[in-house]
Amino acid sequence: MNIFTRPILEINLKNLLNNYAVLAKLAHPAVPAAVVKDDAYGLGAEIVAKLLYDKANCRTFFVAHAVEGAKIAPMVPLADIYVLQGVGSDSIDIFAQIPHLLPVISSPEGLDFWLKNRPDDDRKPAIQIETGLNRLGFREEELKNLSHDNLKMFGLVMSHLACGDEKDHFMNAHQLANFERLKHSYFPNTKASLSASDGVFLGTNFRQDMVRLGAAMYGINTAPYRPNQMQNVVSVKAPLLQVANLPKGDFVGYSATYRASSNRKIAIVSIGYGDGWPRSLSNVGKVFFKTNGQISEARIIGRVSMDNIICDVTEVCDIKVGDTAYLADDFYTLDEVAIDAGTIAYEIMSRLGKNPRFDRKYIK
Amino acid sequence: MNIFTRPILEINLKNLLNNYAVLAKLAHPAVPAAVVKDDAYGLGAEIVAKLLYDKANCRTFFVAHAVEGAKIAPMVPLADIYVLQGVGSDSIDIFAQIPHLLPVISSPEGLDFWLKNRPDDDRKPAIQIETGLNRLGFREEELKNLSHDNLKMFGLVMSHLACGDEKDHFMNAHQLANFERLKHSYFPNTKASLSASDGVFLGTNFRQDMVRLGAAMYGINTAPYRPNQMQNVVSVKAPLLQVANLPKGDFVGYSATYRASSNRKIAIVSIGYGDGWPRSLSNVGKVFFKTNGQISEARIIGRVSMDNIICDVTEVCDIKVGDTAYLADDFYTLDEVAIDAGTIAYEIMSRLGKNPRFDRKYIK
Repeated sequence: MNIFTRPILEINLKNLLNNYAVLAKLAHPAVPAAVVKDDAYGLGAEIVAKLLYDKANCRTFFVAHAVEGAKIAPMVPLADIYVLQGVGSDSIDIFAQIPHLLPVISSPEGLDFWLKNRPDDDRKPAIQIETGLNRLGFREEELKNLSHDNLKMFGLVMSHLACGDEKDHFMNAHQLANFERLKHSYFPNTKASLSASDGVFLGTNFRQDMVRLGAAMYGINTAPYRPNQMQNVVSVKAPLLQVANLPKGDFVGYSATYRASSNRKIAIVSIGYGDGWPRSLSNVGKVFFKTNGQISEARIIGRVSMDNIICDVTEVCDIKVGDTAYLADDFYTLDEVAIDAGTIAYEIMSRLGKNPRFDRKYIK
Repeated sequence: MNIFTRPILEINLKNLLNNYAVLAKLAHPAVPAAVVKDDAYGLGAEIVAKLLYDKANCRTFFVAHAVEGAKIAPMVPLADIYVLQGVGSDSIDIFAQIPHLLPVISSPEGLDFWLKNRPDDDRKPAIQIETGLNRLGFREEELKNLSHDNLKMFGLVMSHLACGDEKDHFMNAHQLANFERLKHSYFPNTKASLSASDGVFLGTNFRQDMVRLGAAMYGINTAPYRPNQMQNVVSVKAPLLQVANLPKGDFVGYSATYRASSNRKIAIVSIGYGDGWPRSLSNVGKVFFKTNGQISEARIIGRVSMDNIICDVTEVCDIKVGDTAYLADDFYTLDEVAIDAGTIAYEIMSRLGKNPRFDRKYIK
C-alpha cells in the first residue's frame, strides 16, 4: 500500500494559454492585456506572465501592487506593467527602478503625489475614472479641475464594470454611457479600457481599445448566464489518510455538528482551511473519487478543520487509504465549489494558489 | 500629503511569548508543546519556533506536514517535532534526513508504512487514538490488533477534543473517559497528551502529561465562555487610497449590492480578499479609524473585492487619503472579525499570515 500526505494543486497552463487565445480573438480588434495581480490570482504571476509574454505575445500586464510588478518585470522586459493600486511612499522607489512599471492614478491626491515624486523619464501612467462602481477613480468634479497638460499626460484611460457578469444588468449600459461621455469630454485622444474578462462577452462597445483579461483566463465563468466557454485551469486533489467506520449515534468533527443517523463509513482527507479549502463547506461541500472507472460523489460531514476534512464514503466502493480525493476538477469546477461555499471562485483561487502547503504542479 | 498603498500585518511576538508563558504556567506540571503547523497559523513558523525555543525553552513542537517540520528543524535542533498528518511516500525522505522529526501515526496503514520504511534509528513516533472527534486516530478495534511490541514503540499517545471550547459540553467528559480508559488498557507507561489550548482551561485531568499550545498562544480566545486571558498578537492595517462623495441613489461595488439612501462619504481601503480579508464581510464588516485621539467605527458597504474594500465614513471626522484604517487590533480582535465574517479567527489568521501581499512587521 502506498500512502501520501500532502494535497496537490494542479495548474493547467495549456488551458490557461488556450483561454487567453480564445478571449483575445473574441476581443479583437481590442488589444488584450493580462491581469496577473494577486500572484496571478494565486496561480503564480512569474510563470503566468512569462508564458503569456513568450507564447502569446502579450505586451500589457496589470498588477495590484508595485511589489507584484517588480516580481514579473524581468520576465516581461518590453511590456507595460500597470499598477492598479497606484503609487505611494511605500512604492515610489520600485517605480524608480523599473521603467516599464506604470501607475494607475485614481485620485487627485494620487496625481499630486506622482507629479511631485515621479522618476525623471517619459513614462505615461493610466488614469482611472469612476463610472458607477464607486470604487477607485476620479469623479467628474475632480476631472474638471485637471489642467490641460495633466489631462494629456496619460497613456490610458480606464474604468471597471460593477455588473459585467450579468448580461442585461442596467448598470452595464449606464457605465458604458458614463465612460464614453467622460472619455470624449476629457480624454478624446487617449487609449481607453473599460472592461475586464466579463466585458469581453458584452459586445463591441464594451471592449474599447483594450480589454483586461483575468478571471476568465484562469477558467472562471465570468459570463455565468451561459455555459462556460473557458477550459478548466485549476484542479485540487488530496490523499485519504484514513478510512473508518462511524457507528450510528457518533458525532463528527469540531463542535459535534454532525451525528450519524445510521452506521456509516467515513474517510479523512488531508486538506483543510489551512490549505485554503473554505471552512464554509462544513457539512455541505462535496468530494469526488474515481473508483472502478467511475466518478463517485461524497459529502463533507462535520466541520472543515485546519488540516483535514471528513467525508461520508458509505456509498463509494473499494475506497482505501492512499486513494485520491478530487476536490476541484473539470467535473466540479471552482465555480461550483464557490456556490457550495457561499462565495466566488476568485476568492477560493486566490487562497489556494498562494498557499505554500500545496505540492504545486504545472501542466505545460 | 503622504500616500501609502500596501496593507500591513503586525505580529506582536512579545504578546505571543507572554501568552505561551501564561498557558505554560496554567498547564503546569504538564509539559507545554507549541503547535506551529500551517506556518504557525500563518504567522511565520521559523520565527515563532525559534523564539519559543530560545526564549521559552520549548522543546516539543507540532506541525501538520513533514515539509513544515523541515522548515523549523534547524531552529530547534534539540526539540522533538511531531508531524500530525503522519508519514507517506511523499515525506519519508524528509524523515530520513531529520532525526528529530517524529510522525504521529493514526491508522494501521500508517503504522504499516512506517514499520516498512522508517529510518534506521531509535526515534519514537506518537500514536493518535480516536476518542470522539471521529477524525484521525486508531479506533479501539484497531488497537486490539496491535502486537505487544508495537504498543510499546510509541513515545506519546495523543487524542484531540471536539468541543474543548465549550466548558460544559458533554463531549469533554466523554472524550476524557475514553482517553483514560484506552490509555490505561493499551499504553499504561506511555506519556499522554489529550488537549490543545482549549483543554488547558478545562482542568487538571485534561492536561495529562503534555498540552499542545496553538490558537490561544496566537491570541485567539479558546475559552470563549469567559473574557480572553490572552493578549492580542495580530493587527491588520491598510491605507486609505481615496475619499469620495457618494451621492444619494448611487450604488457601490460589484453586483451593486449597496445603494445610498442619502448623500454619504466613502473611503476606499487598500485591502481585499486577495489579502485574505474575508469576502463574507461584504456589507457587514467593520473598519476603524483613529482621528482626533479617538477611535471611530465605519461599516463596510458593498462587496469586498480582491484588492479593496469600501466603507462609509460619513460620521468619521477629518479623514483623508493616506490615513490608516484599522481592520483588526486590540479593540477589534480577529475573534470579533470572525463573528462578523461567519467563521473562526483560526481561518482568518491562516489566510492573512501566509499572504505575501502584506508588508509584514514583527514587534519584538
